[in-house]
Amino acid sequence: VIVCVSANPSIDKLFEVDRLVAGAIHRPVGFVQRAGGKGLNVARAAASLGADVCAVAMLRGHAGAWIRDALAAEGVPGSFVWTSGETRASLSVADRAEERLTEFYENGEQVPADAWPGFARAVVEQLHAASWLTISGSMPPGSPDDGYAQLVDAARRAGTPVALDAAGAHLERALHAGPDVVKVNRHEAADLLGEEMATEERALAGARELRARAGADGHTGIVTLGAEGVVVVGPDGLELRGHLYERGRYPVGSGDAFLAGLTVGTERSAGLEEALRLALGSAAANAELPGAGRLDPDRAKSLAGSARVVRV
Amino acid sequence: VIVCVSANPSIDKLFEVDRLVAGAIHRPVGFVQRAGGKGLNVARAAASLGADVCAVAMLRGHAGAWIRDALAAEGVPGSFVWTSGETRASLSVADRAEERLTEFYENGEQVPADAWPGFARAVVEQLHAASWLTISGSMPPGSPDDGYAQLVDAARRAGTPVALDAAGAHLERALHAGPDVVKVNRHEAADLLGEEMATEERALAGARELRARAGADGHTGIVTLGAEGVVVVGPDGLELRGHLYERGRYPVGSGDAFLAGLTVGTERSAGLEEALRLALGSAAANAELPGAGRLDPDRAKSLAGSARVVRV
Repeated sequence: VIVCVSANPSIDKLFEVDRLVAGAIHRPVGFVQRAGGKGLNVARAAASLGADVCAVAMLRGHAGAWIRDALAAEGVPGSFVWTSGETRASLSVADRAEERLTEFYENGEQVPADAWPGFARAVVEQLHAASWLTISGSMPPGSPDDGYAQLVDAARRAGTPVALDAAGAHLERALHAGPDVVKVNRHEAADLLGEEMATEERALAGARELRARAGADGHTGIVTLGAEGVVVVGPDGLELRGHLYERGRYPVGSGDAFLAGLTVGTERSAGLEEALRLALGSAAANAELPGAGRLDPDRAKSLAGSARVVRV
Repeated sequence: VIVCVSANPSIDKLFEVDRLVAGAIHRPVGFVQRAGGKGLNVARAAASLGADVCAVAMLRGHAGAWIRDALAAEGVPGSFVWTSGETRASLSVADRAEERLTEFYENGEQVPADAWPGFARAVVEQLHAASWLTISGSMPPGSPDDGYAQLVDAARRAGTPVALDAAGAHLERALHAGPDVVKVNRHEAADLLGEEMATEERALAGARELRARAGADGHTGIVTLGAEGVVVVGPDGLELRGHLYERGRYPVGSGDAFLAGLTVGTERSAGLEEALRLALGSAAANAELPGAGRLDPDRAKSLAGSARVVRV
């Protein structure tokens, strides 16, 4: 079972307009809403790839109940921890004329002090059956800065491989707890390391540095570069570049699909290079369908076959 | 009891940003969400003015349950009719730099065919105790075009005065059913009458025409002109202009507060001119506080005292 941490899920709304005009009233020409947030996207993508998953999600109020029902309707299994307040929503406005997204992410309200400990216990309860623990996205306001570090630590003690995709202070603290895999995008890497990931060489040095901070030997550092691919430094120090020249219209959630492909690949005992190809294929397949973390598994496998992974 | 029809309520979210940038990701510097939609705003404003109210609202799913709880927390009594699907949300993005609102209104999903008849029955059940029926805002997709006409008709047969604030085909149909008061803004009047309400004189002719379509004698036609005031043709044909030179920062919902002030004023046996002053005061008081339909009743009464109402 791939256990996917979703501490701060969201009702993700896609609101399509002919053109976004500041100061105007807009009514949608297209509208969908889905259970979202990075952790749920990873769970959805991994489930689509055929893996057993369990999304451990902190849910709140009526909006949280909506997410519980939406996941059940999709067939994504979850373990839910309830706390007070309301689960947040995120609105992405797709401008058809300009082909661009303007996004409005609620922060979510502060959670009470007992919310995080209860959530962490629920994650730990799932570790006995876990092949992977994925930790992605934000924590709700009021969570402790070392919240993700606690989860990495618990997974390490349980012998469960753990993959981390976070940002800012949470990333920094959790990295020192030694995740098996750390995967960030170039902006998150730049924020952490204090240097722009302007070139592939610089990004590779960033991946090396992330791996070193996680503990070097046995750890994997990954920096994703969007449509330009990915750089990886593997557990034994092997350095890889991955590319896949397919660009879909719906890149939102491709990073989450990447993480899903990587964990599903290694769960199936693929080597790092093969897992990386499935990760790239999943990310590209995600970009071909609307809805973050949604992908056609056959298409992901076919795209994986055309992914290029080279040793540096 | 002022019975306020709210067929298509909404979770109204105000998302404040330093600056709206198309194509960017925004996180709020301020965020509130409230039970909204024009009917609920009228109910909230009338309750604030001290009236007994009953909001008859069609609610749907988890978002509907949120609205039910939010109204209970505010102390706004309601009668709720449940149908399938989810109550919609509306996001207003306030740009602090430009001092402007960019709004995203969901339409709501189609309602099943039995939703409207059930809702109309719930409205009719409230008429026995009603001093006013207010009908404001949109109907959910899938409602019959003559839905509001049915409600006007039922109120007329029950002897309950009915005030209508609608737009488009629903306004056109309901107007012919003979509401006691029809109140629209200049844009809605222009859409219906096929002519811009470019001057106060033209708007007054518009109010006269609205009153004529509602049945002339005994009916009141009102066209609101935003900050420029309001023109009114009363039940006996008396023509009035109303002005109040106070402009608040939060005009959203002022039209709903106006309707609340007007019905509360006449419920208290004020003459048309006095009720109009309370309506103008309520609209101005609404604009002084964030939150549609929120107002300080003492401030509304004080502002009503400085409203200017003149016979044409």
